[in-house]
Amino acid sequence: MPALDFWFDFASTYSYPAAMRIAPLAATAGVKVRFRPFLLGPIFGAQGWDTSPFNLYPAKGRYMWRDLERLCADLDLPFRPPEPFPQRSLLAARVALVGLSESWGEAFCRAVFRAEFGEGGRIDDITTITGLLAPFKVDPDRVLTAARSEPIKARLRDETQAAQQHGIFGAPSFVTTDGELFWGNDRLERALAWAVKDQ
Amino acid sequence: MPALDFWFDFASTYSYPAAMRIAPLAATAGVKVRFRPFLLGPIFGAQGWDTSPFNLYPAKGRYMWRDLERLCADLDLPFRPPEPFPQRSLLAARVALVGLSESWGEAFCRAVFRAEFGEGGRIDDITTITGLLAPFKVDPDRVLTAARSEPIKARLRDETQAAQQHGIFGAPSFVTTDGELFWGNDRLERALAWAVKDQ
Repeated sequence: MPALDFWFDFASTYSYPAAMRIAPLAATAGVKVRFRPFLLGPIFGAQGWDTSPFNLYPAKGRYMWRDLERLCADLDLPFRPPEPFPQRSLLAARVALVGLSESWGEAFCRAVFRAEFGEGGRIDDITTITGLLAPFKVDPDRVLTAARSEPIKARLRDETQAAQQHGIFGAPSFVTTDGELFWGNDRLERALAWAVKDQ
Repeated sequence: MPALDFWFDFASTYSYPAAMRIAPLAATAGVKVRFRPFLLGPIFGAQGWDTSPFNLYPAKGRYMWRDLERLCADLDLPFRPPEPFPQRSLLAARVALVGLSESWGEAFCRAVFRAEFGEGGRIDDITTITGLLAPFKVDPDRVLTAARSEPIKARLRDETQAAQQHGIFGAPSFVTTDGELFWGNDRLERALAWAVKDQ
């Protein structure tokens, strides 16, 4: 079965529509998707940015918020920007890695994005994360302990490094089995088509 | 008739596919398009960049060239990157302004983009520009004199300032009659739909 890696950072605005769109599109295309949360912070830091480029370049930032609003309206997705932006995504990413090694990872990722960009919630808040875990009938204490364990911390660092090695410089990004990189929510369809052709 | 302004810089890579796609798409949508060349240089300069962000951020640059190559293959457009990149687009933009006030402007713009990104040609070279004028049966000396006249120089400066006032920070950009801004070749279809809806 064709496969596609979906690389995202929970702080990334355009990763929200991508996360909401990818499962049904991939099912239709017959592509198996792997959710791969990572951290953009170190990658941005390496090119001298200490915050989101949407904050560093105000005209670009203003455009992005308006564009995302239009996009969410087109997709019938709720939209409300979080305060502050960007949110610290470390905790959510570690919890997601726990979930992705069990059965509730993808649904949790969608719930995080919806809480953050659909409801303007704070995803760096442990109460938010605990609340988002409720539907999955998992013990939040166990999950949070696992999320803070050394293996999960190391895993997230390794994933971030792997993203960089794939040439990833932003999110969302999609990487096919043969290493072809696609960047941006608007490249999702093209990436899926490439993954299919590549088989 | 619905209208859409197409803002571009001849040095901008993704403006190439946009320039090649816009006329037939706009005709189908029933939208009147106005070609508006401007200079990204002063806008980039204002945010501290002295060259293209694709040069400043190598991972992004590598991705862009590969992405543009794929895109041109999908669209059946010739593709060959110019040396050096970015090309100085001042002369081509001034000549285009002359052409756009006559009848040959849009065809000239497409010819410039094809020479630059389809054949890797130097568009800052007066011989290239003169060659591109040949099919239009205009006197190249008259055109070049007009292109270097004070009114055309001032016009290009004014257009660049107008672009900035519309919130434009990159190219290609599309602006509807009600001031809605869309950025990027992949927003062309959405911009045309907005222009139609907006009527």
